[in-house]
Amino acid sequence: MTGLKWQGDKLLVLDQTLLPGTEEWVSCSGADDVAKCIVSMKVRGAPAIGAAAAFGVALEAAEAYRQVSEHTAAQMYPQLEEAIVRLGKTRPTAVNLFWALDRMSNALAECRSSEATGEQVVTTLRAVAAAIAAEDVQVNRAIGRHGLDLFRGPVSVLTHCNTGSLATVEYGTALGVIRALHEQGWINNVYVDETRPFLQGARLTAYELGLEGISHTLITDSMAGHFMKEGSVNAVLVGADRIAANGDTANKIGTYSLAVLCHHHGIPFYVAAPTSTFDLSTPSGESIPIEYRDDREVLEWLGQRSAPARTSGINPAFDVTPAELIEGIITEHGVIYLPDKQRIANFFREVGGDES
Amino acid sequence: MTGLKWQGDKLLVLDQTLLPGTEEWVSCSGADDVAKCIVSMKVRGAPAIGAAAAFGVALEAAEAYRQVSEHTAAQMYPQLEEAIVRLGKTRPTAVNLFWALDRMSNALAECRSSEATGEQVVTTLRAVAAAIAAEDVQVNRAIGRHGLDLFRGPVSVLTHCNTGSLATVEYGTALGVIRALHEQGWINNVYVDETRPFLQGARLTAYELGLEGISHTLITDSMAGHFMKEGSVNAVLVGADRIAANGDTANKIGTYSLAVLCHHHGIPFYVAAPTSTFDLSTPSGESIPIEYRDDREVLEWLGQRSAPARTSGINPAFDVTPAELIEGIITEHGVIYLPDKQRIANFFREVGGDES
Repeated sequence: MTGLKWQGDKLLVLDQTLLPGTEEWVSCSGADDVAKCIVSMKVRGAPAIGAAAAFGVALEAAEAYRQVSEHTAAQMYPQLEEAIVRLGKTRPTAVNLFWALDRMSNALAECRSSEATGEQVVTTLRAVAAAIAAEDVQVNRAIGRHGLDLFRGPVSVLTHCNTGSLATVEYGTALGVIRALHEQGWINNVYVDETRPFLQGARLTAYELGLEGISHTLITDSMAGHFMKEGSVNAVLVGADRIAANGDTANKIGTYSLAVLCHHHGIPFYVAAPTSTFDLSTPSGESIPIEYRDDREVLEWLGQRSAPARTSGINPAFDVTPAELIEGIITEHGVIYLPDKQRIANFFREVGGDES
Repeated sequence: MTGLKWQGDKLLVLDQTLLPGTEEWVSCSGADDVAKCIVSMKVRGAPAIGAAAAFGVALEAAEAYRQVSEHTAAQMYPQLEEAIVRLGKTRPTAVNLFWALDRMSNALAECRSSEATGEQVVTTLRAVAAAIAAEDVQVNRAIGRHGLDLFRGPVSVLTHCNTGSLATVEYGTALGVIRALHEQGWINNVYVDETRPFLQGARLTAYELGLEGISHTLITDSMAGHFMKEGSVNAVLVGADRIAANGDTANKIGTYSLAVLCHHHGIPFYVAAPTSTFDLSTPSGESIPIEYRDDREVLEWLGQRSAPARTSGINPAFDVTPAELIEGIITEHGVIYLPDKQRIANFFREVGGDES
């Protein structure tokens, strides 16, 4: 399954705010449509946001091409640069968004320096966006394979938020590892944190695991410690929205608490993320911008208010887990064990991977 | 405010499942009515359950008295003993329930041995129930006063679930300490965990704090670690449903995770509870029975399902925090610092308090 369908002249986005009850696809024909889908979290998940934004730029190129009278690339550039800026302002934390937009920006610069025609710009941007999406699927499958190295046999794992097909282009990061474990017959049970306030666990992860027939149990976020203490959880697997040069990892709010709980119980805490999630220009977690969203998400429950009228809330969408609490980061090029600045630098030197 | 109104011939129970939207009082005229209110969590909170159950026995006595033809106490005893058994089966974890029923049982035994008349049985049980409720208010105010000893000036605290007027007869345990701090001008802010799955924090604690004009911010349970790491939380204050002889404490699910997070951040974790919450016959937390409730509470909210149809959940209503993670237990007779078996035994020897 996937939450993004690329049709060349439009991008279909599965509205994840309506899942699992309703399967509704939103049709996007330009960057603005895509930006709106990202802001409203119709599409969410770091790799999925990156791919959607890339498609948004490609759509905008086609639109610009239709609009300019002489079909010259020169007339299209300002609109495309604006589209990239607009898409970059949708959500601040996940770095895959900026990584994908940088790739689109670089492709645009190449078009410019090679004096490409308007039609060539459209074709190039479509090709780069399609490549970003296609690579994501391969990358996720590789993450899944490398994740298997961390296990010797059947386990029960706990996961937070949604890191599956819906958060990526297909397969998933942490959920990709869980899929790979399941294909191996190594999943006893997956404890799924419901992941308040947006309920990505209850609504999306449970949905994906159900479709795959993977045994899972929904719990509230507050129950994780209890089940760790009971010995029911062998490992925690989460995704990431941005990993700093020293390994500090921003991910969905609640991730940090899980890492502390794992540390306390001696349970390994693993992050699964493509190398595009690393931001080596950010030295540590302290410099990662954390998005604060509307407090209504905390005060309400699927649109139904639970708190009293005069109560206000606060809604950080992410938290930062220090590298010291992370046993390993599973990437498409292998696992970085006990990540720190030196090991991450060495890893990127060896694999020659992305260092955006 | 209070969630229990005793009117002699009936007990009015404020339906806490409908707060904060609707204020609806349920009229109870016998033990069965009260038992139903406890099971459905119309009344909840360890001390409130204890008081409600005591009133339930008193109501049953009046009902039995009306029913028996010759108005002799002997004819009433079987019905009253049954009522006590019935009320004791409502919820297994909070020990205040059994403590209150034991007091009613003892009063009944005294009536029997003193050959009391039917009318005297009714009067006696009413008086004991009223005393339990009246004492609870005094006990909570004393807890509030002793809680002040732990602070030197303004603080921001975090609390979980509801431990206020609605969880007790009036004033509250952990929320009683917060009230006392507020009366002193020492509350900068109260971080209120929404407390999934039943949302006692969002619905009840925020409601009570709002009524008192105490500054508070609602957060999801998963955010507590983030705000501790940011340095926004100076102490955590929670209530208790049962405290074992060694200090291990059962309380609302999620409490244990908070205690681990406090330990990791060097933030003091305090439990506020009357001595009636201690169960010295339970050696440690391992022997405390944990209630597992219907998983629908996890899968849905107010009848609105968030999880997919084929997903199931698990719903432990409580967890157990080991004494090692508790900085102090605030009781009506003072604070037990760094509680363990010896210190708790010494404390009860000194104060001559309840040791049910």
